[in-house]
Amino acid sequence: MAKSKTAYSASVQQLLELFGKLPGVGARSAERMVFHLLKADPAEALALSDAIRAVKTQVRHCSVCYNLCEAQLCDICEDPSRDGGIICLVEQPKDLLQIESTGAYRGVYHVLLGHLSPLDGIGPEHLTIEPLLERIAAGGTDGRPVIREIILATNPNMDGDGTALYLQSRLAEANVSITRLARGLPTGAQIEYSNKAILSDAISGRTKM
Amino acid sequence: MAKSKTAYSASVQQLLELFGKLPGVGARSAERMVFHLLKADPAEALALSDAIRAVKTQVRHCSVCYNLCEAQLCDICEDPSRDGGIICLVEQPKDLLQIESTGAYRGVYHVLLGHLSPLDGIGPEHLTIEPLLERIAAGGTDGRPVIREIILATNPNMDGDGTALYLQSRLAEANVSITRLARGLPTGAQIEYSNKAILSDAISGRTKM
Repeated sequence: MAKSKTAYSASVQQLLELFGKLPGVGARSAERMVFHLLKADPAEALALSDAIRAVKTQVRHCSVCYNLCEAQLCDICEDPSRDGGIICLVEQPKDLLQIESTGAYRGVYHVLLGHLSPLDGIGPEHLTIEPLLERIAAGGTDGRPVIREIILATNPNMDGDGTALYLQSRLAEANVSITRLARGLPTGAQIEYSNKAILSDAISGRTKM
Repeated sequence: MAKSKTAYSASVQQLLELFGKLPGVGARSAERMVFHLLKADPAEALALSDAIRAVKTQVRHCSVCYNLCEAQLCDICEDPSRDGGIICLVEQPKDLLQIESTGAYRGVYHVLLGHLSPLDGIGPEHLTIEPLLERIAAGGTDGRPVIREIILATNPNMDGDGTALYLQSRLAEANVSITRLARGLPTGAQIEYSNKAILSDAISGRTKM
Protein backbone atom coordinates (compact mmCIF):
# COMPACT_ATOMS: atom_id res chain seq x y z
CA MET A 1 0.00 0.00 0.00
CA ALA A 2 1.11 3.54 -0.69
CA LYS A 3 0.46 4.23 2.96
CA SER A 4 3.92 3.21 4.10
CA LYS A 5 5.17 6.57 2.89
CA THR A 6 3.84 8.31 5.97
CA ALA A 7 4.49 6.28 9.04
CA TYR A 8 2.55 6.11 12.24
CA SER A 9 4.52 7.02 15.34
CA ALA A 10 6.95 4.35 16.55
CA SER A 11 4.81 2.82 19.29
CA VAL A 12 1.70 2.75 17.11
CA GLN A 13 3.71 1.09 14.34
CA GLN A 14 5.04 -1.49 16.80
CA LEU A 15 1.55 -2.35 18.06
CA LEU A 16 0.22 -2.58 14.49
CA GLU A 17 2.91 -5.12 13.64
CA LEU A 18 2.29 -7.20 16.77
CA PHE A 19 -1.48 -7.23 16.31
CA GLY A 20 -0.89 -8.20 12.68
CA LYS A 21 0.88 -11.35 13.84
CA LEU A 22 -2.23 -12.66 15.60
CA PRO A 23 -4.14 -15.29 13.63
CA GLY A 24 -6.83 -13.88 11.37
CA VAL A 25 -5.71 -10.29 11.87
CA GLY A 26 -4.67 -8.47 8.71
CA ALA A 27 -3.29 -4.97 8.30
CA ARG A 28 -6.76 -3.39 8.22
CA SER A 29 -8.03 -5.18 11.32
CA ALA A 30 -4.83 -4.40 13.19
CA GLU A 31 -5.35 -0.73 12.35
CA ARG A 32 -8.95 -0.83 13.60
CA MET A 33 -7.81 -2.48 16.83
CA VAL A 34 -5.04 0.05 17.44
CA PHE A 35 -7.34 3.01 16.83
CA HIS A 36 -9.95 1.41 19.06
CA LEU A 37 -7.38 1.16 21.86
CA LEU A 38 -6.16 4.71 21.26
CA LYS A 39 -9.70 5.98 21.71
CA ALA A 40 -10.59 3.56 24.51
CA ASP A 41 -10.62 4.31 28.19
CA PRO A 42 -6.98 3.93 29.41
CA ALA A 43 -8.13 1.47 32.09
CA GLU A 44 -9.62 -0.82 29.44
CA ALA A 45 -6.52 -0.76 27.26
CA LEU A 46 -4.17 -1.33 30.16
CA ALA A 47 -6.41 -4.18 31.36
CA LEU A 48 -5.80 -5.87 28.00
CA SER A 49 -2.05 -5.37 28.39
CA ASP A 50 -2.18 -6.84 31.91
CA ALA A 51 -4.39 -9.75 30.83
CA ILE A 52 -1.90 -10.78 28.14
CA ARG A 53 0.90 -10.64 30.69
CA ALA A 54 -1.17 -12.62 33.22
CA VAL A 55 -1.99 -15.36 30.74
CA LYS A 56 1.62 -15.66 29.75
CA THR A 57 2.97 -15.71 33.29
CA GLN A 58 0.21 -17.53 35.22
CA VAL A 59 -1.20 -20.10 32.85
CA ARG A 60 0.70 -23.39 32.77
CA HIS A 61 0.09 -26.98 31.81
CA CYS A 62 -1.34 -29.45 34.33
CA SER A 63 1.57 -31.65 35.48
CA VAL A 64 -0.49 -34.79 34.85
CA CYS A 65 -2.62 -34.23 31.74
CA TYR A 66 -1.13 -31.06 30.16
CA ASN A 67 -4.48 -29.27 30.14
CA LEU A 68 -4.20 -25.51 30.75
CA CYS A 69 -4.49 -24.44 34.36
CA GLU A 70 -3.11 -21.98 36.89
CA ALA A 71 -2.12 -24.51 39.56
CA GLN A 72 -0.09 -27.71 39.70
CA LEU A 73 -3.10 -29.80 38.69
CA CYS A 74 -6.10 -28.88 36.53
CA ASP A 75 -9.66 -28.97 37.86
CA ILE A 76 -10.39 -32.25 36.09
CA CYS A 77 -7.35 -34.06 37.50
CA GLU A 78 -8.20 -32.65 40.95
CA ASP A 79 -11.81 -33.85 40.76
CA PRO A 80 -12.19 -37.11 42.76
CA SER A 81 -15.52 -37.88 41.05
CA ARG A 82 -13.84 -38.39 37.65
CA ASP A 83 -12.91 -41.90 36.58
CA GLY A 84 -9.11 -41.86 36.52
CA GLY A 85 -9.01 -45.25 34.77
CA ILE A 86 -10.11 -43.89 31.39
CA ILE A 87 -7.93 -41.37 29.56
CA CYS A 88 -9.28 -39.44 26.60
CA LEU A 89 -6.36 -38.36 24.43
CA VAL A 90 -6.90 -35.03 22.63
CA GLU A 91 -4.66 -32.84 20.51
CA GLN A 92 -5.38 -29.49 22.13
CA PRO A 93 -6.90 -28.00 25.30
CA LYS A 94 -9.67 -26.64 23.05
CA ASP A 95 -10.66 -30.18 22.08
CA LEU A 96 -10.85 -31.10 25.75
CA LEU A 97 -13.21 -28.20 26.44
CA GLN A 98 -15.39 -29.16 23.51
CA ILE A 99 -15.68 -32.73 24.79
CA GLU A 100 -16.33 -31.47 28.32
CA SER A 101 -19.15 -29.29 27.01
CA THR A 102 -21.08 -32.41 25.99
CA GLY A 103 -21.15 -33.65 29.58
CA ALA A 104 -20.97 -37.18 28.11
CA TYR A 105 -17.54 -38.04 29.44
CA ARG A 106 -16.58 -38.61 33.08
CA GLY A 107 -13.03 -39.92 32.68
CA VAL A 108 -9.83 -37.87 32.61
CA TYR A 109 -7.76 -36.50 29.73
CA HIS A 110 -4.30 -36.31 28.28
CA VAL A 111 -3.48 -33.38 26.00
CA LEU A 112 -0.89 -34.14 23.29
CA LEU A 113 -0.31 -30.43 22.58
CA GLY A 114 -0.36 -30.99 18.83
CA HIS A 115 -0.22 -33.76 16.26
CA LEU A 116 2.60 -35.46 14.41
CA SER A 117 3.59 -33.45 11.35
CA PRO A 118 6.90 -34.61 9.88
CA LEU A 119 6.83 -31.92 7.17
CA ASP A 120 6.71 -29.22 9.87
CA GLY A 121 9.40 -31.02 11.84
CA ILE A 122 7.00 -32.06 14.60
CA GLY A 123 7.93 -35.54 15.76
CA PRO A 124 6.85 -37.66 18.75
CA GLU A 125 9.39 -35.90 20.97
CA HIS A 126 7.48 -32.62 20.54
CA LEU A 127 4.26 -34.11 21.88
CA THR A 128 3.45 -35.32 25.38
CA ILE A 129 3.71 -38.99 24.43
CA GLU A 130 6.48 -39.95 26.87
CA PRO A 131 4.56 -38.48 29.84
CA LEU A 132 1.51 -40.46 28.69
CA LEU A 133 3.47 -43.73 28.64
CA GLU A 134 4.89 -42.94 32.09
CA ARG A 135 1.40 -42.13 33.32
CA ILE A 136 0.11 -45.50 32.12
CA ALA A 137 3.13 -47.32 33.60
CA ALA A 138 2.65 -45.58 36.96
CA GLY A 139 -1.02 -46.63 37.13
CA GLY A 140 -1.73 -48.79 40.17
CA THR A 141 1.29 -47.50 42.13
CA ASP A 142 1.10 -44.98 44.99
CA GLY A 143 -2.69 -45.11 45.00
CA ARG A 144 -2.93 -44.00 41.35
CA PRO A 145 -5.81 -45.62 39.44
CA VAL A 146 -5.00 -48.39 36.95
CA ILE A 147 -5.52 -47.11 33.40
CA ARG A 148 -8.04 -49.43 31.72
CA GLU A 149 -8.80 -47.55 28.51
CA ILE A 150 -7.29 -44.92 26.25
CA ILE A 151 -9.73 -43.16 23.91
CA LEU A 152 -7.85 -41.73 20.94
CA ALA A 153 -9.74 -38.48 20.27
CA THR A 154 -7.37 -36.91 17.76
CA ASN A 155 -8.99 -34.97 14.94
CA PRO A 156 -10.70 -37.08 12.24
CA ASN A 157 -8.37 -35.84 9.50
CA MET A 158 -5.07 -36.88 7.95
CA ASP A 159 -2.85 -35.45 10.70
CA GLY A 160 -5.03 -36.69 13.53
CA ASP A 161 -5.44 -40.16 12.05
CA GLY A 162 -1.70 -40.43 11.46
CA THR A 163 -1.03 -39.45 15.05
CA ALA A 164 -3.61 -41.97 16.28
CA LEU A 165 -1.99 -44.76 14.25
CA TYR A 166 1.42 -43.92 15.68
CA LEU A 167 0.02 -43.86 19.22
CA GLN A 168 -1.67 -47.20 18.67
CA SER A 169 1.73 -48.76 17.90
CA ARG A 170 3.36 -47.09 20.89
CA LEU A 171 0.58 -48.20 23.23
CA ALA A 172 0.48 -51.78 21.89
CA GLU A 173 2.61 -53.13 24.71
CA ALA A 174 0.68 -51.42 27.48
CA ASN A 175 -2.10 -53.49 28.99
CA VAL A 176 -4.88 -51.04 28.11
CA SER A 177 -7.83 -51.17 25.79
CA ILE A 178 -7.40 -48.62 22.96
CA THR A 179 -10.52 -47.11 21.41
CA ARG A 180 -11.21 -44.22 19.10
CA LEU A 181 -14.18 -41.89 18.62
CA ALA A 182 -16.92 -43.22 16.35
CA ARG A 183 -16.71 -42.12 12.72
CA GLY A 184 -19.80 -41.71 10.55
CA LEU A 185 -22.50 -39.35 9.39
CA PRO A 186 -22.80 -36.24 11.57
CA THR A 187 -26.25 -35.89 13.14
CA GLY A 188 -28.33 -33.46 11.10
CA ALA A 189 -26.46 -34.13 7.85
CA GLN A 190 -28.05 -35.13 4.55
CA ILE A 191 -26.67 -38.17 2.73
CA GLU A 192 -27.15 -36.30 -0.55
CA TYR A 193 -24.53 -33.75 0.46
CA SER A 194 -22.12 -36.01 2.36
CA ASN A 195 -18.76 -36.70 0.78
CA LYS A 196 -17.16 -40.03 -0.09
CA ALA A 197 -14.89 -40.17 2.96
CA ILE A 198 -17.76 -39.64 5.38
CA LEU A 199 -20.03 -42.15 3.61
CA SER A 200 -17.26 -44.77 3.44
CA ASP A 201 -16.71 -44.38 7.18
CA ALA A 202 -20.44 -44.61 7.82
CA ILE A 203 -20.77 -47.80 5.76
CA SER A 204 -17.73 -49.58 7.11
CA GLY A 205 -18.62 -48.60 10.66
CA ARG A 206 -22.31 -49.50 10.43
CA THR A 207 -23.85 -50.81 13.65
CA LYS A 208 -26.69 -53.21 14.47
CA MET A 209 -30.02 -51.59 15.30
CA MET B 1 -22.80 -21.92 23.18
CA ALA B 2 -22.84 -24.97 25.41
CA LYS B 3 -19.20 -24.28 26.08
CA SER B 4 -19.83 -21.96 29.00
CA LYS B 5 -20.40 -25.05 31.12
CA THR B 6 -16.67 -25.71 31.35
CA ALA B 7 -14.77 -22.53 31.94
CA TYR B 8 -11.27 -21.62 30.94
CA SER B 9 -9.02 -20.64 33.80
CA ALA B 10 -9.60 -17.16 35.19
CA SER B 11 -6.82 -15.33 33.37
CA VAL B 12 -7.63 -16.99 30.04
CA GLN B 13 -11.30 -16.08 30.49
CA GLN B 14 -10.34 -12.49 31.26
CA LEU B 15 -8.17 -12.20 28.14
CA LEU B 16 -10.90 -13.79 25.99
CA GLU B 17 -13.36 -11.16 27.16
CA LEU B 18 -10.97 -8.28 26.56
CA PHE B 19 -9.98 -9.49 23.09
CA GLY B 20 -13.67 -9.92 22.34
CA LYS B 21 -14.20 -6.20 22.95
CA LEU B 22 -11.86 -5.24 20.10
CA PRO B 23 -13.63 -4.25 16.89
CA GLY B 24 -14.22 -7.14 14.50
CA VAL B 25 -13.19 -9.76 17.04
CA GLY B 26 -15.87 -12.31 17.93
CA ALA B 27 -15.74 -15.13 20.44
CA ARG B 28 -14.10 -17.51 17.96
CA SER B 29 -11.37 -15.08 16.88
CA ALA B 30 -10.69 -14.13 20.49
CA GLU B 31 -10.21 -17.80 21.26
CA ARG B 32 -7.79 -18.25 18.35
CA MET B 33 -5.82 -15.20 19.50
CA VAL B 34 -5.60 -16.38 23.09
CA PHE B 35 -4.45 -19.86 22.09
CA HIS B 36 -1.95 -18.31 19.68
CA LEU B 37 -0.51 -16.26 22.54
CA LEU B 38 -0.49 -19.26 24.88
CA LYS B 39 1.59 -21.18 22.37
CA ALA B 40 3.71 -18.22 21.30
CA ASP B 41 7.19 -17.42 22.48
CA PRO B 42 6.80 -15.60 25.85
CA ALA B 43 8.90 -12.71 24.49
CA GLU B 44 6.48 -12.17 21.63
CA ALA B 45 3.40 -12.24 23.86
CA LEU B 46 4.93 -9.92 26.42
CA ALA B 47 6.01 -7.58 23.60
CA LEU B 48 2.33 -7.26 22.65
CA SER B 49 1.45 -6.50 26.26
CA ASP B 50 4.17 -3.86 26.42
CA ALA B 51 3.22 -2.36 23.05
CA ILE B 52 -0.38 -1.83 24.19
CA ARG B 53 0.89 -0.16 27.34
CA ALA B 54 3.32 2.00 25.35
CA VAL B 55 0.68 3.17 22.91
CA LYS B 56 -1.64 4.08 25.74
CA THR B 57 0.99 5.90 27.78
CA GLN B 58 3.21 7.46 25.10
CA VAL B 59 0.93 8.37 22.23
CA ARG B 60 -0.75 11.75 22.57
CA HIS B 61 -2.34 14.36 20.36
CA CYS B 62 -0.24 17.10 18.76
CA SER B 63 -0.91 20.28 20.74
CA VAL B 64 -1.54 22.22 17.52
CA CYS B 65 -3.33 19.93 15.06
CA TYR B 66 -4.43 16.95 17.23
CA ASN B 67 -2.70 14.42 14.99
CA LEU B 68 -1.26 11.44 16.88
CA CYS B 69 2.35 11.83 17.99
CA GLU B 70 4.73 11.05 20.81
CA ALA B 71 6.05 14.58 21.36
CA GLN B 72 4.53 18.01 21.93
CA LEU B 73 4.19 18.61 18.19
CA CYS B 74 3.66 16.11 15.36
CA ASP B 75 6.17 15.69 12.52
CA ILE B 76 4.00 17.69 10.12
CA CYS B 77 3.59 20.68 12.44
CA GLU B 78 7.36 20.54 13.13
CA ASP B 79 8.24 20.51 9.42
CA PRO B 80 9.28 24.04 8.33
CA SER B 81 8.81 23.13 4.64
CA ARG B 82 5.02 22.72 5.04
CA ASP B 83 2.76 25.65 4.18
CA GLY B 84 1.29 26.68 7.54
CA GLY B 85 -1.21 28.99 5.83
CA ILE B 86 -3.42 26.17 4.54
CA ILE B 87 -5.18 23.86 6.98
CA CYS B 88 -6.76 20.64 5.80
CA LEU B 89 -9.50 19.67 8.25
CA VAL B 90 -9.99 15.91 8.63
CA GLU B 91 -12.12 13.79 10.94
CA GLN B 92 -9.51 11.26 12.04
CA PRO B 93 -5.73 10.76 12.11
CA LYS B 94 -6.30 7.91 9.63
CA ASP B 95 -7.73 10.37 7.11
CA LEU B 96 -4.66 12.55 7.52
CA LEU B 97 -2.38 9.60 6.77
CA GLN B 98 -4.40 8.69 3.70
CA ILE B 99 -4.13 12.24 2.35
CA GLU B 100 -0.41 12.34 3.19
CA SER B 101 0.09 9.12 1.23
CA THR B 102 -0.93 10.92 -1.97
CA GLY B 103 1.95 13.39 -1.62
CA ALA B 104 -0.38 15.95 -3.23
CA TYR B 105 -0.75 18.20 -0.21
CA ARG B 106 1.95 20.38 1.35
CA GLY B 107 -0.10 22.36 3.87
CA VAL B 108 -0.83 21.44 7.48
CA TYR B 109 -3.79 19.68 9.13
CA HIS B 110 -6.33 19.94 11.86
CA VAL B 111 -7.87 16.72 13.17
CA LEU B 112 -11.44 17.05 14.45
CA LEU B 113 -11.29 13.68 16.23
CA GLY B 114 -14.74 12.72 15.02
CA HIS B 115 -17.82 14.20 13.40
CA LEU B 116 -20.98 15.76 14.73
CA SER B 117 -23.51 13.08 15.61
CA PRO B 118 -26.37 14.47 17.70
CA LEU B 119 -28.02 11.05 18.00
CA ASP B 120 -24.87 9.69 19.66
CA GLY B 121 -24.62 12.78 21.83
CA ILE B 122 -21.55 14.09 19.99
CA GLY B 123 -21.81 17.85 19.74
CA PRO B 124 -19.33 20.57 18.71
CA GLU B 125 -17.86 20.61 22.22
CA HIS B 126 -16.63 17.02 21.74
CA LEU B 127 -14.63 17.94 18.63
CA THR B 128 -11.54 20.13 18.34
CA ILE B 129 -13.49 23.05 16.89
CA GLU B 130 -12.63 25.63 19.58
CA PRO B 131 -8.88 24.96 19.23
CA LEU B 132 -9.27 25.39 15.45
CA LEU B 133 -10.94 28.78 15.88
CA GLU B 134 -8.22 29.82 18.34
CA ARG B 135 -5.59 28.61 15.89
CA ILE B 136 -7.08 30.75 13.12
CA ALA B 137 -7.42 33.76 15.43
CA ALA B 138 -3.80 33.40 16.57
CA GLY B 139 -2.53 33.37 12.95
CA GLY B 140 -0.13 36.25 12.26
CA THR B 141 0.79 36.72 15.94
CA ASP B 142 4.07 35.56 17.51
CA GLY B 143 5.47 34.60 14.10
CA ARG B 144 2.64 32.15 13.39
CA PRO B 145 1.59 32.03 9.73
CA VAL B 146 -1.67 33.72 8.70
CA ILE B 147 -4.26 31.07 7.84
CA ARG B 148 -5.42 31.75 4.27
CA GLU B 149 -7.45 28.64 3.52
CA ILE B 150 -9.32 25.86 5.31
CA ILE B 151 -9.98 22.72 3.24
CA LEU B 152 -12.94 20.84 4.70
CA ALA B 153 -11.93 17.22 4.15
CA THR B 154 -14.62 15.53 6.21
CA ASN B 155 -15.99 12.26 4.83
CA PRO B 156 -18.30 12.58 1.80
CA ASN B 157 -21.26 11.09 3.65
CA MET B 158 -24.17 12.33 5.74
CA ASP B 159 -22.19 12.78 8.98
CA GLY B 160 -19.19 14.36 7.29
CA ASP B 161 -21.29 16.71 5.16
CA GLY B 162 -23.30 17.77 8.21
CA THR B 163 -20.11 18.49 10.11
CA ALA B 164 -18.73 20.47 7.15
CA LEU B 165 -21.90 22.58 6.96
CA TYR B 166 -21.69 23.36 10.66
CA LEU B 167 -18.01 24.26 10.36
CA GLN B 168 -18.76 26.52 7.41
CA SER B 169 -21.15 28.53 9.59
CA ARG B 170 -18.68 28.69 12.46
CA LEU B 171 -15.84 29.79 10.17
CA ALA B 172 -17.96 32.38 8.33
CA GLU B 173 -16.65 35.28 10.40
CA ALA B 174 -13.00 34.30 10.08
CA ASN B 175 -11.19 35.92 7.19
CA VAL B 176 -10.25 32.65 5.47
CA SER B 177 -11.20 31.01 2.23
CA ILE B 178 -13.19 27.83 2.89
CA THR B 179 -12.98 25.01 0.34
CA ARG B 180 -13.96 21.39 0.29
CA LEU B 181 -12.64 18.32 -1.52
CA ALA B 182 -13.98 17.84 -5.07
CA ARG B 183 -16.95 15.52 -5.37
CA GLY B 184 -17.61 13.46 -8.51
CA LEU B 185 -16.95 10.18 -10.24
CA PRO B 186 -14.06 8.21 -8.73
CA THR B 187 -11.28 7.57 -11.23
CA GLY B 188 -11.61 4.06 -12.63
CA ALA B 189 -15.39 3.91 -12.09
CA GLN B 190 -17.98 3.07 -14.73
CA ILE B 191 -20.93 5.41 -15.17
CA GLU B 192 -23.14 2.36 -15.74
CA TYR B 193 -22.54 1.23 -12.15
CA SER B 194 -22.40 4.63 -10.41
CA ASN B 195 -25.25 5.55 -8.12
CA LYS B 196 -27.54 8.58 -8.25
CA ALA B 197 -25.74 10.52 -5.51
CA ILE B 198 -22.36 10.19 -7.21
CA LEU B 199 -23.75 11.09 -10.66
CA SER B 200 -25.67 14.09 -9.30
CA ASP B 201 -22.46 15.36 -7.70
CA ALA B 202 -20.54 14.77 -10.91
CA ILE B 203 -23.11 16.66 -13.00
CA SER B 204 -23.57 19.63 -10.66
CA GLY B 205 -19.81 19.89 -10.16
CA ARG B 206 -18.88 19.55 -13.85
CA THR B 207 -15.79 21.51 -14.89
CA LYS B 208 -14.66 23.12 -18.15
CA MET B 209 -12.22 21.08 -20.24
